[in-house]
Amino acid sequence: MLKEYAPAAPEDKKELNRQIKALREKLLGQQQQLRDAKLPVIVLIEGWAAAGKGSLIKELISEIDPRFYSVVSPAITPEVEARYPFLYPYMKAIPMNGKITFLDSGWMDCAVQKFLRHEITKAEYRHRVRQINEFERQLRDGGYLVLKLFLHIDKAEQFRRLQGLVEAPETEWRVSVDDLWQHREYNRFLEAYDGFMEKTGDTIPWHILDGSHSRVAVRDAMQLLAGRIDRGLAQGRYVGEPFEADFPLIPMPKLAEVDLSPTIDDDEYKKTLKKLQNRLSELHNILYRKKIPVILCYEGWDAAGKGGNIRRVAYPLDPRGFDVHPIASPLPHELNRQYLWRFWTRLPRTGHIAIFDRTWYGRVMVERLEGFCTEDDWKRAYNEINEFERMLTDWGAVVLKFWIHIDQETQLARFTDRQNTPEKQWKITDEDWRNREKWPQYELAVDEMLQKTSTRNAPWHIIESNDKKYARIRTLSIIVKALEEACDNRFKQIME
Amino acid sequence: MLKEYAPAAPEDKKELNRQIKALREKLLGQQQQLRDAKLPVIVLIEGWAAAGKGSLIKELISEIDPRFYSVVSPAITPEVEARYPFLYPYMKAIPMNGKITFLDSGWMDCAVQKFLRHEITKAEYRHRVRQINEFERQLRDGGYLVLKLFLHIDKAEQFRRLQGLVEAPETEWRVSVDDLWQHREYNRFLEAYDGFMEKTGDTIPWHILDGSHSRVAVRDAMQLLAGRIDRGLAQGRYVGEPFEADFPLIPMPKLAEVDLSPTIDDDEYKKTLKKLQNRLSELHNILYRKKIPVILCYEGWDAAGKGGNIRRVAYPLDPRGFDVHPIASPLPHELNRQYLWRFWTRLPRTGHIAIFDRTWYGRVMVERLEGFCTEDDWKRAYNEINEFERMLTDWGAVVLKFWIHIDQETQLARFTDRQNTPEKQWKITDEDWRNREKWPQYELAVDEMLQKTSTRNAPWHIIESNDKKYARIRTLSIIVKALEEACDNRFKQIME
Repeated sequence: MLKEYAPAAPEDKKELNRQIKALREKLLGQQQQLRDAKLPVIVLIEGWAAAGKGSLIKELISEIDPRFYSVVSPAITPEVEARYPFLYPYMKAIPMNGKITFLDSGWMDCAVQKFLRHEITKAEYRHRVRQINEFERQLRDGGYLVLKLFLHIDKAEQFRRLQGLVEAPETEWRVSVDDLWQHREYNRFLEAYDGFMEKTGDTIPWHILDGSHSRVAVRDAMQLLAGRIDRGLAQGRYVGEPFEADFPLIPMPKLAEVDLSPTIDDDEYKKTLKKLQNRLSELHNILYRKKIPVILCYEGWDAAGKGGNIRRVAYPLDPRGFDVHPIASPLPHELNRQYLWRFWTRLPRTGHIAIFDRTWYGRVMVERLEGFCTEDDWKRAYNEINEFERMLTDWGAVVLKFWIHIDQETQLARFTDRQNTPEKQWKITDEDWRNREKWPQYELAVDEMLQKTSTRNAPWHIIESNDKKYARIRTLSIIVKALEEACDNRFKQIME
Repeated sequence: MLKEYAPAAPEDKKELNRQIKALREKLLGQQQQLRDAKLPVIVLIEGWAAAGKGSLIKELISEIDPRFYSVVSPAITPEVEARYPFLYPYMKAIPMNGKITFLDSGWMDCAVQKFLRHEITKAEYRHRVRQINEFERQLRDGGYLVLKLFLHIDKAEQFRRLQGLVEAPETEWRVSVDDLWQHREYNRFLEAYDGFMEKTGDTIPWHILDGSHSRVAVRDAMQLLAGRIDRGLAQGRYVGEPFEADFPLIPMPKLAEVDLSPTIDDDEYKKTLKKLQNRLSELHNILYRKKIPVILCYEGWDAAGKGGNIRRVAYPLDPRGFDVHPIASPLPHELNRQYLWRFWTRLPRTGHIAIFDRTWYGRVMVERLEGFCTEDDWKRAYNEINEFERMLTDWGAVVLKFWIHIDQETQLARFTDRQNTPEKQWKITDEDWRNREKWPQYELAVDEMLQKTSTRNAPWHIIESNDKKYARIRTLSIIVKALEEACDNRFKQIME
């Protein structure tokens, strides 16, 4: 793509400026329509060092009301880079509905640079490319208008620009060692950028801009942006269709088939609890040092005993190394972004443990049943979630998912107890009773969820919790076993 | 305080455990009352290295529902430390109403360590102590229950603990060079901690816990926490009274006295605009390299021309180095925290520019007039804001505040124009008309605000904006002048 790129013929300057002025006015009008249509826009601007990305963005935003856009140069500090999944800073930066985010270089540059520096292996690079494609598709399917631009200059032009910057004392500091390195390795970069574009242009196409004619690039970028917005406004919010994907699924029983009779006697419980908690505490130390992130997901019926279960798991952990995230209805700024955003932004740092008390699976349970999303939305979510979790385990995380299970009689008994015990009354609301009436619908949804999202890398565990103590011991055992394996296998995992 | 501290006499173990159990249950009940009373709690846990802060927190949280608390070890990365005000990570961590934040060491340790390492001067240390007192008072006055604990062990005990940790291979990594350094310098630390406690114990008292008897420390911490919560619940939400403070105020004219006739002709405007923007662009480069943070605050009448003014200032800036923060009504998670929280968390990094389109002054304007806060709240706010801004300028920031001023006739003309121009209709709402009716009340509030908060370090500028072009030129001139001085004076400022 870049290799065959022919710079545009020189254009009449006056005419260019006239066009830019007209486009600027068009964009000015569109910002209001975007807001009314609640459409979010992401403009990714990649390109060569010194190609003029900053100046291009400056022109693009010059007339837009600051309430409608933000410019993000994902300041990838070494800390963030080493301790979060590589797409984390970009996901963090996605705009709310009705707003525009301009990304001053992004996932393309990040992936390609890492690869050329041999900081990631060829296999890791391939994974990243796959994750990028999944990421872009998920954004598109979630209604985002994504525009991908590449600001191109040839090697000679890059030389002139870098030279100009370096020779003036007030701009010399702007040229980084990385920029100079890129220039020396221009041809390798050209090859790699081209390869990257080829592998990532199917879902959302790339557009190459002529960086050697900055006004032409501005005009073209504005035209592309205005065109993209026009199409988005004409078509209305896009909702992606469900898609097939090939995940290694573990067969799961139906909830109705689960034997809920197991119990544990008190002495055995106390003894085993202590043993498992001590071991978990040791493992937390090791995880911390090996920098393995851990994500524990709790879902289950109301009053199934999630809270008490989580407390037994959390108790032996060093409070500096874990967080419990109770997940309630999304707040407005969460609701106005792709639905996984509020979970991405709660991911643990490497070596830390995040415990989710309810999770992203709300999409295929409450949001499905209450009609908070479309049918395509929740049907698509199974594989979107599988992709999300594969991204997490590719990153090196241990992901365990628990369905805390009870039967309807047990729930009724616990609800009644809560109703009748003053200190427990805050735990029971009218909504709980309403949800209870929908048990059959929920059971159907949960069964489907378990079938479709219990992957080998992020399996579901149904935890029999009619006896809460038994449930705690089972959960702890599963966690301890998985963490032991992770501590042992970390080396193998990296080398695979 | 620490020097005279006598460890408690040994206690009966069974009785201790009984007390802890009872307190745990008490705390379990209190969490619900806290939620109902919407009271936020901050528990600051300071203390010696290896005194057992982590284990203490573990016990304190063991029965609390994860929805009600979070543990924060302000992971002060060098990046955050160097690029934000030193209280930034602590302010960021304050809880929402009804929740508890446990801080695993905080502003005390941070200030004392820096001082003993000679990383801050004596004068800077004094400033920090003052800022800490202001910070704690502002939290208390904003309804926060703040509990400050210090976990104490003597030098011999610290030696035993560090030795124990170092000698076991699985815990050796837990002992940092800083910990060993603290141990060698135990006496200097003792002196410094004592001095710090003396200077910061008036608003919110310190409590020393006996770290050498960990169960006693747990019991005492629980007792103090339960007691603090009980008092808070009994008294209801505390609202601090307005207080006097001695800020170097600049006399300001009343709005009615401002001559709004100045205008600028078109040629002059274009020429000067270009010149000022070019200079601002150069200055942005210098600021960036000198790492001077800049905070520009815009307030003004509806339709006074804030948006267009901001755009002219933003245009010459490198989009990677500034953010515009449009400030609307607070979102729920903002409304449920101290009112300055949403501005603290939007502070620019050093070398960056933050432009606030409306600001924290909403407290003494719209919140005052619409009754969104109590009279004590907004009366207190003048000096709270002065403290906040002094903290910013102490940090090295340039803070400039603009009141974009027009008269009522001009507003009416612009409102009518917006009403009658389809592309501008989104800019005008019923609320604007309602606000317009309250012009006299607003004028009174603005006059009072300008009198009380135009400090020498963070002055107000009234910008005559009946002619928007004139207003832009004036604002740009003031900014350029202030930034030029800042670039020149940075050295002096540090050495003062």
